[in-house]
Amino acid sequence: MSKPTSGNIYRSPSVPQVQVHGFWEPRIAAVRDKTAGILHERAVEVGGLKQLDRNSEIPPYEYPFSPDPARGRTVRRIFWDSDFGKIIETIGYIAANGRVPDLEAKVDHVVDLYEKLQLEDGYINSWYIRYDPEHRWTNLRDCHEFYCLGHMLEGAIAYFQATGKDKFLKLLRKAVDQAMATVGPEPGKLRGYPGHEEMELALMKLYRLDGDRKYLDYAKYLIDERGQSPKFFEVEAKARGETQNLRASRDPEYNQSHLPVREQTKIVGHAVRAMYLYCGMADVALDTHDDTLRAALDAIWDDLVQKRLYVHGGMGPSELNEGFTKDYDLPNLTGYAETCAAIGLAFWAQRMLAFEPNSRYSDMMELAIYNGALSGISLDGSLFFYENPLESDGGHHRWKWHLCPCCPPNIARLIASIGTYFYTFTDSALAVHLYGGSEGKFPMAGGETRLTQKTDYPWDGAVEMRVGRDRPGSFALQVRIPSWADDDAMLSVNGETVDIAKHVRKGYVSIEREWKDGDVVLLNLPMRVKRIHANPRVRFDAGRVALKRGPLVYCLEGVDNGNIPLNSILLPGDARFAERFDPALLGGVMTLRTTASAETTGDWAGQLYRERPQETADVDITAVPYYAWDNRDAGEMLVWVRKA
Amino acid sequence: MSKPTSGNIYRSPSVPQVQVHGFWEPRIAAVRDKTAGILHERAVEVGGLKQLDRNSEIPPYEYPFSPDPARGRTVRRIFWDSDFGKIIETIGYIAANGRVPDLEAKVDHVVDLYEKLQLEDGYINSWYIRYDPEHRWTNLRDCHEFYCLGHMLEGAIAYFQATGKDKFLKLLRKAVDQAMATVGPEPGKLRGYPGHEEMELALMKLYRLDGDRKYLDYAKYLIDERGQSPKFFEVEAKARGETQNLRASRDPEYNQSHLPVREQTKIVGHAVRAMYLYCGMADVALDTHDDTLRAALDAIWDDLVQKRLYVHGGMGPSELNEGFTKDYDLPNLTGYAETCAAIGLAFWAQRMLAFEPNSRYSDMMELAIYNGALSGISLDGSLFFYENPLESDGGHHRWKWHLCPCCPPNIARLIASIGTYFYTFTDSALAVHLYGGSEGKFPMAGGETRLTQKTDYPWDGAVEMRVGRDRPGSFALQVRIPSWADDDAMLSVNGETVDIAKHVRKGYVSIEREWKDGDVVLLNLPMRVKRIHANPRVRFDAGRVALKRGPLVYCLEGVDNGNIPLNSILLPGDARFAERFDPALLGGVMTLRTTASAETTGDWAGQLYRERPQETADVDITAVPYYAWDNRDAGEMLVWVRKA
Repeated sequence: MSKPTSGNIYRSPSVPQVQVHGFWEPRIAAVRDKTAGILHERAVEVGGLKQLDRNSEIPPYEYPFSPDPARGRTVRRIFWDSDFGKIIETIGYIAANGRVPDLEAKVDHVVDLYEKLQLEDGYINSWYIRYDPEHRWTNLRDCHEFYCLGHMLEGAIAYFQATGKDKFLKLLRKAVDQAMATVGPEPGKLRGYPGHEEMELALMKLYRLDGDRKYLDYAKYLIDERGQSPKFFEVEAKARGETQNLRASRDPEYNQSHLPVREQTKIVGHAVRAMYLYCGMADVALDTHDDTLRAALDAIWDDLVQKRLYVHGGMGPSELNEGFTKDYDLPNLTGYAETCAAIGLAFWAQRMLAFEPNSRYSDMMELAIYNGALSGISLDGSLFFYENPLESDGGHHRWKWHLCPCCPPNIARLIASIGTYFYTFTDSALAVHLYGGSEGKFPMAGGETRLTQKTDYPWDGAVEMRVGRDRPGSFALQVRIPSWADDDAMLSVNGETVDIAKHVRKGYVSIEREWKDGDVVLLNLPMRVKRIHANPRVRFDAGRVALKRGPLVYCLEGVDNGNIPLNSILLPGDARFAERFDPALLGGVMTLRTTASAETTGDWAGQLYRERPQETADVDITAVPYYAWDNRDAGEMLVWVRKA
Repeated sequence: MSKPTSGNIYRSPSVPQVQVHGFWEPRIAAVRDKTAGILHERAVEVGGLKQLDRNSEIPPYEYPFSPDPARGRTVRRIFWDSDFGKIIETIGYIAANGRVPDLEAKVDHVVDLYEKLQLEDGYINSWYIRYDPEHRWTNLRDCHEFYCLGHMLEGAIAYFQATGKDKFLKLLRKAVDQAMATVGPEPGKLRGYPGHEEMELALMKLYRLDGDRKYLDYAKYLIDERGQSPKFFEVEAKARGETQNLRASRDPEYNQSHLPVREQTKIVGHAVRAMYLYCGMADVALDTHDDTLRAALDAIWDDLVQKRLYVHGGMGPSELNEGFTKDYDLPNLTGYAETCAAIGLAFWAQRMLAFEPNSRYSDMMELAIYNGALSGISLDGSLFFYENPLESDGGHHRWKWHLCPCCPPNIARLIASIGTYFYTFTDSALAVHLYGGSEGKFPMAGGETRLTQKTDYPWDGAVEMRVGRDRPGSFALQVRIPSWADDDAMLSVNGETVDIAKHVRKGYVSIEREWKDGDVVLLNLPMRVKRIHANPRVRFDAGRVALKRGPLVYCLEGVDNGNIPLNSILLPGDARFAERFDPALLGGVMTLRTTASAETTGDWAGQLYRERPQETADVDITAVPYYAWDNRDAGEMLVWVRKA
């Protein structure tokens, strides 16, 4: 991928290195044919281009943090640049697999506007340039200058890599230089760091592209400085005369600046901020071989997965801070679980896999991608969830656009680059993390290795991996055995069974041999319906089970279940599920059907409480994958089903 | 009580007519000896007197609706007058049973300040006079002028009735005249009505005191005008140039102005506003014999008790509007259930009982008083709950004072006048609604009737009622048979059993006979522990039971249950409870003890989810009355316990 990374590091492939079929192919097509255009169109509709366009009237000023009752009509213009950044990144990933002139024309127009907008000194943030140029770099805590710059940079890199067009990247390099001249450890500069992390990881992408160590050093500075005393956000608040801050960001935990990052052990604050910080930390740890950062990341990872993660890989239960609250506080009905946070977990996990294959990361990456992240986009790619609760009373629906439209382009860029999450590789090892029909090409020490996966995953757990080599070569093929497969997975190489239990290490079986063209590895992951129980400290899941099959979390939807109250349903412990693939349903899904009982409501006329227990009657129930919910008639939804 | 009410109306006794002992005596003493002084002291502490005192500096202006992070430190000054009104009312009720010179001196000082503050034309609202005199009566929707006036009036009446001091009452009559000259149906006046109802019921108190029909007519106008088109709150918003209203009050349902009141059938909006409106409607319906109002009240009552009432008599689940949301939306952990709303239900029920004894009202009155209202004050009378959720994760605690301190004086005035809720009476009937040690005196057609209750209620259901008469007299003694007593209640008159089933009508057994001094009525209400089940449409109570014993709702508290997660506890359907009165616990309570099972947490180290079901172990559990919770060590609390 890049010059600076060493051979010991597990690199991710680029988008065109992995051609994806199967489950993900129609989703990638939807992003290419529908979502990408929609993202641009809606950003324009809400006035986005006018903000960038010096020749346009300035859209009416709105202080971005005023209470806003007209949700969905007005927008928070202060981070529009980040949305354009992610839209450009999405289109870059699409173009990497086949140029898209119409979409590229839109990007090129946006880039032209930025070119005209950019100030002499390189500063490029459209909100400040248009609304408040005098006050740039005076509120790093709240005002997203670094965050926007980071996303624009990610977009510029992806777009350049796909198309060779480097105009945006050049503008961005100049803008990064301006930021570095303004904020930094040197005397005369603001000794600050981003209020919303993102710049750190974007700098690492630029470092890996350009090989210029100044970007690595700057990313490391931003990470090392975070949480040091005196606290920069207090210093700058005082400097701008702020006497009272009404926002959640007053709490330094909100943006993870409460402690130097190496002293952090709990996952706290705004969930997306947290995820992006850990991505940057992992990147810097990897390229600087800094085990102190990695130790902090592992402590935080444990805290997340042991106490604060939803069963669908989402996180951050509270709307108030869009983030974390207390251990085991995982409400279902009001669960915030922002799409971007689950996506951020995939980003973070991918970066942890750069150290080594380890299913503690890839299991969570798969969980987040297939559930709490993928739920964020409708099957046709046109509507979006911002919040991903695990229960709905019928009032939670996908948005056309959001007051804070960060999630739609985020899920789009994830899907458009999904193949890059399937594998990591070194010169002498190829690790398979995600299963799905695909063809990958990996430049390795002894020549290119190709790997073709044939599978109906995630509906079926049989995966055929066929090795392609121009000439035989020795390397380790590292095959992930998901923790949900228990001890029942089966693995063979050219028909010879591999003893998984004997060879599995950190969730991977490493098959080291001389591979030749046509070698076949067969993996079979039993896809049984699993009942998941929650730690008794999670009050919201008490007496309930979640249904999983393979990597997918299931849910009940009203439309499949006669619209009876879903919490009236009781699932017997011995209920056997009929697993049926329905190609016409929800783009093709495996449904789970069984007979349960349900408390009847007909005998309660006019009663809210009574001494006589509820009566029950048998009822046939159907569960569908969580990611696909709210694509049909509105109704209740429930992940955690009551145990009979 | 008053001149205008007719003999057919069931009047409530005044405070000194019912001397209360037993359960309520120490609570009344706490209000007298502690709470009343605290209420005044804390109102002064936050600057209340300065706002009234023309000689004091004006406290710094704070727009009352600004977001306010410093909860508990600043206050919403716009309705301080109402708090002084309720404090004065509380002290009035206390003084009615024995003068209290110290407390009265405080009241007299406040009244003197109001006297000096009141404007020439009678206007008396301290916030507008001190901060914004130009804009009085320009925002009836939000700015509480009527609400404050109503509470001051209630206070002035109670204080006058107890002490004979009429200075405050005179000021208030003048202020009412000013309001009537400003707002009303006549040309040139604002055709408005209160944004927060309260004035209507206060006017009815003044009407019943003075007998001046103009107050009745004005109360009727305020009720009849509500919700008529054109909507007044829209008219006045336009008049003051309001373009955008960020508050919940923008929704006319918030203040029940969405429809003319006779067309309303659903309970909606801000819960306390709703309760006070229905009180005013009931008062007007009673004194104008308006069955159309009563029909609307009964429809709304049904809607409340059938779909929107918590099992503890609280209501209004949402903090956002301090009120109602959807049918069956009764979350426990986040349940708002403002103390004032449960108190308001007692007020409303008491007024419905003026039409006739009917246990559909008195059952709910008792439920609200003993549970969702009484929980609002600590056992020692010094700390308060604003919200009364049915579950706590350990983070919900009593306040010393509240940003919006409406609840403390409200629960204080209820307790100080609790005897007035025990009975209603006509010239020829005496209805007993609440049981508790007490002596009541009732002027009836044939002479005074005295009724002495001896009982350990609510701990024991045996109630001895002894009639006192100077000479025998014929009247109906109407004895409430609570619905929770089922068919097991026993009733006798002078040792002769009364067949309850045969004689009960609308929840009361009416014993019509010639009563003579010393006649004894014995009532026995079996106090069994009851498991209450919720309608399956209440998702939050699914798979759970609430424990009740007599009128009391019980809860588990961490401190009594080893601080294990209360949602890990499973109550077997056949668990028998040991009922033990513990005089040293929580001021003396009946505890319920049994053996349940609990899911163990020790075997979950480091796991949030797993396939293996939870393991359980036996555990002894103790439940205490809900009203008494959070008077000891902080911890979890749970009303709805899981069924095994």
